Amino acid sequence: MCEAVVFIVKDGDKKQLMENVVTLHPEGEKILLTDLFGEQKLVTAKIEKVDLTGHEIILSTG
Amino acid sequence: MCEAVVFIVKDGDKKQLMENVVTLHPEGEKILLTDLFGEQKLVTAKIEKVDLTGHEIILSTG
Repeated sequence: MCEAVVFIVKDGDKKQLMENVVTLHPEGEKILLTDLFGEQKLVTAKIEKVDLTGHEIILSTG
Repeated sequence: MCEAVVFIVKDGDKKQLMENVVTLHPEGEKILLTDLFGEQKLVTAKIEKVDLTGHEIILSTG
């Protein structure tokens, strides 16, 4: 499967935000994340990097 | 593998931009796409949707 782990960077600090993410949907200043189980998180952030083979998505905020 | 096909939407028209994409790296108004073979494209666009299980990334421009 191709789910990714989403990390968020704030003030140089990288924290894991959500696992098993299958879709990212930017909406203005926010990003709607949906995981494999249908759970969703809406975060105020921007996309820094999407690494599909590394299964890692980096967002930033602040 | 988890590469994706990147599409770009302009004026409601959806066109395939790049296959086998492994990383997206937004840089200001632009997005740097890199494929499995190391080939890169820099496009002026924004990310509309990243669908990891559907292996599809939608950008928009214009």
